[in-house]
Amino acid sequence: MASDPADRAGAILEIDLAAIAENWRQLARRVDPATCAAVLKADAYGLGAAQVAVALAAAGCRLFFTATIDEGIALREALPAACDVGILNGPPPRCAEEFIEYRLIPVLNDLGQIADWAETTARRCPLPAMLHLDTGMARLGLTMREFDGIAHGLTQWGSVRWRAVISHLACADQPEHPLNEIQRTRFASARTRVSYLPASLAASSGIFLGRSFHFNFVRPGAALYGVNPHPGWPNPLRQVIRLKAKILQLREVDQGESVGYGATHVMDAPGRLATVAVGYADGWLRSLSSRGSGRLGGKRVPLIGRISMDLIVFDISNVDPSMARPGSSIDLLDEDYGVDAAAADAGTIGYEILTALGKRYHRVYRGAPGQW
Amino acid sequence: MASDPADRAGAILEIDLAAIAENWRQLARRVDPATCAAVLKADAYGLGAAQVAVALAAAGCRLFFTATIDEGIALREALPAACDVGILNGPPPRCAEEFIEYRLIPVLNDLGQIADWAETTARRCPLPAMLHLDTGMARLGLTMREFDGIAHGLTQWGSVRWRAVISHLACADQPEHPLNEIQRTRFASARTRVSYLPASLAASSGIFLGRSFHFNFVRPGAALYGVNPHPGWPNPLRQVIRLKAKILQLREVDQGESVGYGATHVMDAPGRLATVAVGYADGWLRSLSSRGSGRLGGKRVPLIGRISMDLIVFDISNVDPSMARPGSSIDLLDEDYGVDAAAADAGTIGYEILTALGKRYHRVYRGAPGQW
Repeated sequence: MASDPADRAGAILEIDLAAIAENWRQLARRVDPATCAAVLKADAYGLGAAQVAVALAAAGCRLFFTATIDEGIALREALPAACDVGILNGPPPRCAEEFIEYRLIPVLNDLGQIADWAETTARRCPLPAMLHLDTGMARLGLTMREFDGIAHGLTQWGSVRWRAVISHLACADQPEHPLNEIQRTRFASARTRVSYLPASLAASSGIFLGRSFHFNFVRPGAALYGVNPHPGWPNPLRQVIRLKAKILQLREVDQGESVGYGATHVMDAPGRLATVAVGYADGWLRSLSSRGSGRLGGKRVPLIGRISMDLIVFDISNVDPSMARPGSSIDLLDEDYGVDAAAADAGTIGYEILTALGKRYHRVYRGAPGQW
Repeated sequence: MASDPADRAGAILEIDLAAIAENWRQLARRVDPATCAAVLKADAYGLGAAQVAVALAAAGCRLFFTATIDEGIALREALPAACDVGILNGPPPRCAEEFIEYRLIPVLNDLGQIADWAETTARRCPLPAMLHLDTGMARLGLTMREFDGIAHGLTQWGSVRWRAVISHLACADQPEHPLNEIQRTRFASARTRVSYLPASLAASSGIFLGRSFHFNFVRPGAALYGVNPHPGWPNPLRQVIRLKAKILQLREVDQGESVGYGATHVMDAPGRLATVAVGYADGWLRSLSSRGSGRLGGKRVPLIGRISMDLIVFDISNVDPSMARPGSSIDLLDEDYGVDAAAADAGTIGYEILTALGKRYHRVYRGAPGQW
């Protein structure tokens, strides 16, 4: 008799699709009458693009974004036909057929992509596209100078059916940063040249900069998945994941014993340790060594020593021994210690905690919608 | 006509199986007459366990290790029947059938796992196992005290067919660390109690501590994949991967323009930037922001600003413009800048650079063996 995959896995990752849908609805209400798209790149920030897409379509979302074509194809196969899928990185050379077959909408980021796409539409058939303007990231998108050169004749490029003009904020998580207003002003000025197009500037944090940043639609990603879009303020979104690592072994240690690689942790008193079956190969970033923590029996238990590839050791001396046995769980992420808290301990942002979530976790989806 | 997956991908990861096999042979020669196993946990440190397993079996390796059962099952399906597969994390409850069906050898790490396994063998059939002693990691393995209590009667536990006794070094990458000799002495003393069993203490770095650390077999992992097992000395192993990121967009920028999230990088002169289609969601750790570099046209090009989820920006002002166009590549990893160099810039170890390698890369395997 084969075992249950959950029994074989070192950790259980619970993903609450109802919470993701609720977060989307909350953001959609906040920006109304602007509409709310959803960004599902990087496999929906590591949480499973197909499952998240179905949940958000059921909640009412009709416009989705991924970074790459292959992500877009996966989304198209999961989504109802009424939904649109935009590809932020644009169309690579020789890949136009996938855009046509899977009805993907490329975001065109430079003059070369526009010329290539116009040529494709002239040769094949009219095709949609979005235009990306760079207003201050210097990463992707037309410069304001390039846009000035083409804005008046935009509709004369082949048979491109322009669907939107978008840009992206560099400092939206710092509301006081002067670049926000500079980018907003540049974008507002540019879009007057193409006022016939729906416009979009704000992602998760941009939504919280106020109505003037919302334009026609917004594109949240991180906030859907529980990352606080408004650092320093209470997080208005729900946590959507819980990560439970299984205890492989318990151990009594003496004062003076060292723990883990490099013997960096030395016990200053006798204690009790729990080794769990998660490591940096599961995306529990090695920078959490000696800094992270878990939750066991309602108490915080410190992560001690270096994180190994497949293992982490916690000091559980402060927990009633009856709470821990091999096979029981220590919470790595939960309501009390979410992705932002882990990120702060790791010296990064919640986004990276999410996208690093490992392949070896057994994933359990909760709150899936019954129907569209 | 469907496009080539390599055209759709943002980066190409080349994995040289011949180099991995050559690294294994070099280590095997170094430890002879001890034998050389291979550690392929975490999907062969992110490089593809099935492909690596086949290459190493062809090179002569007969003993493999993974961390988990599911990894072991994948290995068993790729390997010739003559090979053995050990599972370092041991048998979780209710999973004995997989060990029997796929002929996996559990490493038993505590008295509970030994008792459970003995019970299984008594009930089902004689089964192999390895015994793990903790000599100074305080992570997995029997304490010396526990081992003293069971050593004389080890062969009387059910119908367990003991195949080896192993332990693991905490500080092998620091040859001068006193814990190495302490662990070696403890292990040598313990194994006299079970001298009928093959013994193994050394992984990659332990191999370079000298013959007295080799015992009957060694268990390299990282060194097979090009990580320097002997930090501070020239790396005796070959680099096995190359990572080439595609340029999505080129951009001329003015002095004073800021780049990327947080506007953390400001151009101190006019320059030329290249944005590539790799980000931290591909495992290019965000801690490389403003610290990493790429190679283009034989020159080092600095990574500037923060790494985004799907994008990185390089300053390529010092490179002949004819060397860069959209679709051409910037090397993220190559012979000159290997996993250890990237790890040093990221503040981690080469192991984490490997296990973080992303799913969106298009993988190309070179040097696959023609036959066993």
